[in-house]
Amino acid sequence: MTQAEESRFSERAKELIQQLTLEEKVGMLHGAQLFCTAGVERLGIPPLHMSDGPMGVRNEICGDHWEPVGLPDDYVTYLPSNSAVAATWNRQLARDTGKVLGEEARGRGKDMILAPGINLKRSPLCGRNFEYMSEDPCLTRELAVPLIEGIQESDVSACVKHFAVNNQETERLQVDVKVSERALHELYLPAFRACAKVSYSMMSAYNRLAGEFCSQSKALLNDLLRRQWRYHGVVVSDWGAVHDTQLTAESGLDIEMSVTDNFDQYYLARPLCEAVRAGKVPEYLLDEKIERILVLMQKLHMLDGEERKPGCYDTAAHQLAALQTARESVVLLKNEDNLLPLPKKKLKKLLVIGDNAICAHAPGGGSAEIKALYEVTPLLGIKSVLGGNTEVRFARGYCPDTDGEQNCTNWQADSLKGSAGKALKSVVTTLRKKRRALRHEALKLAAEYEHVVLVCGLTHHQDSEGSDRSSMELPYEQDKLIAEVLMINPKAVVVLTGGSPVEMGKWLSKAKSVVWGWYAGMEGGRALAEVLFGDVNPSGKLPETFAKRLQDCPAHSVGEFPGGKKVYYNEGIFVGYRHFDTVAVEPEFCFGHGLSYTTFRYDNLAVKLQENEKELSVVVSCDVTNTGEYAGKETVQLYVRDPVCSVARPSKELRGFQKLALAPGETCTAKITLTAADFSFYDSQQRVFVAEPGEYQILVGASSRDIRLKESVRTVYRHTTAE
Amino acid sequence: MTQAEESRFSERAKELIQQLTLEEKVGMLHGAQLFCTAGVERLGIPPLHMSDGPMGVRNEICGDHWEPVGLPDDYVTYLPSNSAVAATWNRQLARDTGKVLGEEARGRGKDMILAPGINLKRSPLCGRNFEYMSEDPCLTRELAVPLIEGIQESDVSACVKHFAVNNQETERLQVDVKVSERALHELYLPAFRACAKVSYSMMSAYNRLAGEFCSQSKALLNDLLRRQWRYHGVVVSDWGAVHDTQLTAESGLDIEMSVTDNFDQYYLARPLCEAVRAGKVPEYLLDEKIERILVLMQKLHMLDGEERKPGCYDTAAHQLAALQTARESVVLLKNEDNLLPLPKKKLKKLLVIGDNAICAHAPGGGSAEIKALYEVTPLLGIKSVLGGNTEVRFARGYCPDTDGEQNCTNWQADSLKGSAGKALKSVVTTLRKKRRALRHEALKLAAEYEHVVLVCGLTHHQDSEGSDRSSMELPYEQDKLIAEVLMINPKAVVVLTGGSPVEMGKWLSKAKSVVWGWYAGMEGGRALAEVLFGDVNPSGKLPETFAKRLQDCPAHSVGEFPGGKKVYYNEGIFVGYRHFDTVAVEPEFCFGHGLSYTTFRYDNLAVKLQENEKELSVVVSCDVTNTGEYAGKETVQLYVRDPVCSVARPSKELRGFQKLALAPGETCTAKITLTAADFSFYDSQQRVFVAEPGEYQILVGASSRDIRLKESVRTVYRHTTAE
Repeated sequence: MTQAEESRFSERAKELIQQLTLEEKVGMLHGAQLFCTAGVERLGIPPLHMSDGPMGVRNEICGDHWEPVGLPDDYVTYLPSNSAVAATWNRQLARDTGKVLGEEARGRGKDMILAPGINLKRSPLCGRNFEYMSEDPCLTRELAVPLIEGIQESDVSACVKHFAVNNQETERLQVDVKVSERALHELYLPAFRACAKVSYSMMSAYNRLAGEFCSQSKALLNDLLRRQWRYHGVVVSDWGAVHDTQLTAESGLDIEMSVTDNFDQYYLARPLCEAVRAGKVPEYLLDEKIERILVLMQKLHMLDGEERKPGCYDTAAHQLAALQTARESVVLLKNEDNLLPLPKKKLKKLLVIGDNAICAHAPGGGSAEIKALYEVTPLLGIKSVLGGNTEVRFARGYCPDTDGEQNCTNWQADSLKGSAGKALKSVVTTLRKKRRALRHEALKLAAEYEHVVLVCGLTHHQDSEGSDRSSMELPYEQDKLIAEVLMINPKAVVVLTGGSPVEMGKWLSKAKSVVWGWYAGMEGGRALAEVLFGDVNPSGKLPETFAKRLQDCPAHSVGEFPGGKKVYYNEGIFVGYRHFDTVAVEPEFCFGHGLSYTTFRYDNLAVKLQENEKELSVVVSCDVTNTGEYAGKETVQLYVRDPVCSVARPSKELRGFQKLALAPGETCTAKITLTAADFSFYDSQQRVFVAEPGEYQILVGASSRDIRLKESVRTVYRHTTAE
Repeated sequence: MTQAEESRFSERAKELIQQLTLEEKVGMLHGAQLFCTAGVERLGIPPLHMSDGPMGVRNEICGDHWEPVGLPDDYVTYLPSNSAVAATWNRQLARDTGKVLGEEARGRGKDMILAPGINLKRSPLCGRNFEYMSEDPCLTRELAVPLIEGIQESDVSACVKHFAVNNQETERLQVDVKVSERALHELYLPAFRACAKVSYSMMSAYNRLAGEFCSQSKALLNDLLRRQWRYHGVVVSDWGAVHDTQLTAESGLDIEMSVTDNFDQYYLARPLCEAVRAGKVPEYLLDEKIERILVLMQKLHMLDGEERKPGCYDTAAHQLAALQTARESVVLLKNEDNLLPLPKKKLKKLLVIGDNAICAHAPGGGSAEIKALYEVTPLLGIKSVLGGNTEVRFARGYCPDTDGEQNCTNWQADSLKGSAGKALKSVVTTLRKKRRALRHEALKLAAEYEHVVLVCGLTHHQDSEGSDRSSMELPYEQDKLIAEVLMINPKAVVVLTGGSPVEMGKWLSKAKSVVWGWYAGMEGGRALAEVLFGDVNPSGKLPETFAKRLQDCPAHSVGEFPGGKKVYYNEGIFVGYRHFDTVAVEPEFCFGHGLSYTTFRYDNLAVKLQENEKELSVVVSCDVTNTGEYAGKETVQLYVRDPVCSVARPSKELRGFQKLALAPGETCTAKITLTAADFSFYDSQQRVFVAEPGEYQILVGASSRDIRLKESVRTVYRHTTAE
């Protein structure tokens, strides 16, 4: 948006504000329905329609209670989750994903889609990790920005969430996050800052930061967001995250949304009117908020009868976009003896084991749940891609807790006393028996079949809003199943789908091939099958570290997850690979890892430094050659190491990446430009980013632990930057 | 297939037959599961896997009982029904539809798909009419043949059904059809005869013809099909249509399928073994059948490890094909004042009324039921196509009987006595109250909205296997709803979806625009919306007459539908428009009718006769010009009239058609070549088709009653042809 536009919008907003009554203003500042504010019809100001969520536009909810409307007109395209998008390391696919989301939101009549979620993955246990992108701020920023731009192409506002440090679900409504300024600025905020430059709106988080609720925090919303970052977009509270009229009115928050139907009693509803009338809240504070809302509406062409894009949903183009992203999201974790791809044409018989092969994930996960037009499960994908010349047999292998008489996730039968304990024990006994039977059936078949694919992993019973996982283990006795199948059939391929890492130690050494599949949307099962049978060469890379054990993970190794009423981020800046690489703990699969059916050679690293007192530019290039027989894609990753520094720094940090498509034998040059910011740490005293002069190592590789090329560069000036 | 191939296949079959035991032979001649015969593993002869049905590949049924297997791997592409395909008058779309069906059948591991259904629509009430194509044998043949060829491209056999004269569901298992030889050969058999030239298999009907069960009839299967038509394909019985071991063994039927799980006791199972052993049935009769089955298997590349196409299902290409056919199937029946298309961009608000807007039809209809990957209902289609700038309000307007406490279709509460009668009366009263409330809600809204679309019609509660409709009226008090809405809002657009005509007299004169939508598959709702809002210019033409009243229809005007144990086709050759046009009864919408958003001019009819004693060829051509402002498609229809003949003939008969795509202002030439057969009637005495010398009229037009160009042609020789 040009500055001329911005000031024209601002002028028009001010004109309208002069005509608004206090009640009309207040009506625009809070939910008048569960997903909608009030408009001002006499002035042509429409209500603002919002919708969850990151994986598609949520089903239509009644205005005043949490029931679906229930018509068949809100089936939508079910997109890969943000963790899947992140695993593509593909900016264009992130943009395409956003474009679909925006078109569908607009097509469903929405003005704002509550996405993307970009909180950093501090612990693998966070229940909403599947909605988030990465443990790394650079990767998150590079994908979130085009995703937002894609959304907003359709006259729909993105709403980046949850600002800020909403890194867990346990006690999320209350927990007070204690985090160092340096970690905040180096890890938890950079992606939000980058997104704030493009996103028309932002959602403030439930939790507290340094004692203040994020949704009414002057430090966060006024000093940082509005003043320092100069953010002029609209800030919407998470649903029910506001706790005070006065504080919120004075904060940078604009719209209070909540979960109850007493709309008139929201903090920014009648109580705000009364506070203004009583002289406790000056009206100009409301006008500032209204102005931001009216500017937003003009950006979306909602005022003055402007022509607005209509959007559309459930189109073939959207389904194709979902498929393309799903294809590049699949991560080939392990592939000994080139067991994969399985020989599609020669495959006369195939055994598929595992409940996740038939599990539809769209309806779960909390506010991210989707009423999908359809969902291609892995079994359907496998059968559809193989066709009728292969006899595919399915064995469930295990069952979830919901197969019991009651949901006993996280049950602890032994700790319960009396009849409740007895009843639960009997459910558990029944479930164990059922699983034993399912496992035995699967094992019997696994012995008969040459080709076996296990499809196991997590579901939205683990990866879900509202609670965190209690462990990193696979649920439902799946470790036992996988281990036993591999014992009987060592060539069984293990596919895991889910939104966050699991421990694989009980069987990984026995598995030749392991594939990770995420929640990859309505076309996820097809994409997975295309990878298994070689129609698609996998190119996904892990956007987070897969630890061997939970206790290896930084937040857990310091004993600070999930905390109590307060949570101390004592690991500081050492989150994810920044921890594993610095303290030399071996992960199961490192950040950036992902194999291909072909191989890539890295050559000719060139590092060109240009520096003066004010500016620093380092152009890094290298050649990558496809040395195998499959066409494939490779993500070249650039890390920077600062071996000597006045403060402790991670042994390396991702500062750039580029995804290349290479035919067999083809060579391409990757080129990444670094600036001073890419060499900086956050100086908490001076409150700026600092790049000290001296030697830096430029590390280029196929993952954070597969560095192929290395070069040093020496700077001579000290550079400071705001971000 | 070349003759060399045919004899090679035959040789190989004979080699195998020599190695088969009697039990093995018999195993191949009857169902060993509900949809599968037994193979002979030691000789590499696989079982033959069959599946319903015409609108897609049916869900997986357990081998020995009628329960779905229930896994998520049998969701499929849901195709437009045959009546919709017929309404396109587009041979390429029929072929594309077949290609999808074949690829999906093969993709699901099937060898034979029980489609297409091509029985003539003798009465509008036949419950399976939606599965059939037309009241006209020429239109049926021209679309059925490419559809079959499309199926068989994927190494899957089509199975044309139901052979023959299965024109009603009432008493279908027993009814004895009494039909004249002439009507049989002119109307009921020609499409079967044309299909027999391409279809690898055929299904024999349940009913009797001239006293004999079709599935064991020597007259039908031996004399006509095998000897006269020289059909070498496989004949499969309808499920449970066989009633005798000896008669069936001696008939041209090859495989007995049935509905029960006592497979060993089927007529062509153990009883056949015993009959052979007892010398009652000579074994060479079995060998003939086995040979046909083994030849079929070779055509499908099922033997000797040949490479076979794998097929696939649920692909984007299949969904697109379903959409294309759905688009061209929509028939614009009426469009006064060019009310349609509705102005998409200007439409700020739209009211949609009617339960068929939200009704999913895939799961109904009997054996044609589909487990669709998805189904875009009209409401979803409308919302998705319009996008978010139009506020779409929905009112149900009416509800089906199933909304009552019990299904009371065809209830006659007054005739019931005692408590059952009372209970039923109370259900009816409740339903009537509910409908009144729904109607009132709809009417109230219809008065408020400028733009209203009614989506009413039939469902598979009426259009279904196993029973015929009892009347041609719209069910569920829809006439009342439509009439009252039109009274309040005369610009309301009436959309009817269903598989067979309904009476519209109670409101048609008040309606400006009426659209007919069929069961148009998973993309039907989208196609309909695209037509309503002008993204697609409608080009469907009725493949059957829409009568004003049931009693105007020939079978009903002679009082011969559905008959009792016997049914007399006393209307003879005067079926459909052959009746309406000959006796000059005005239909509501005539055969071949269908409007466009553009207009077409017909010019320059040229008729070139070439004749000698042996051959007759008449080349008919004319120019068609798009004289309007929309690009559009027009189906040029060619009818032949024989004004003077030694036998009574219909006033005109369809003998050819061509669908042209024309840009505004564009002119194309349609060219259709007629041969002697196109001037012939069936001479029951001589058992040949005869074209008598004399004058014929060539009628070219946009429908059977919108003849635009006319020309006479005079022949001088008498021609006889076999078909």
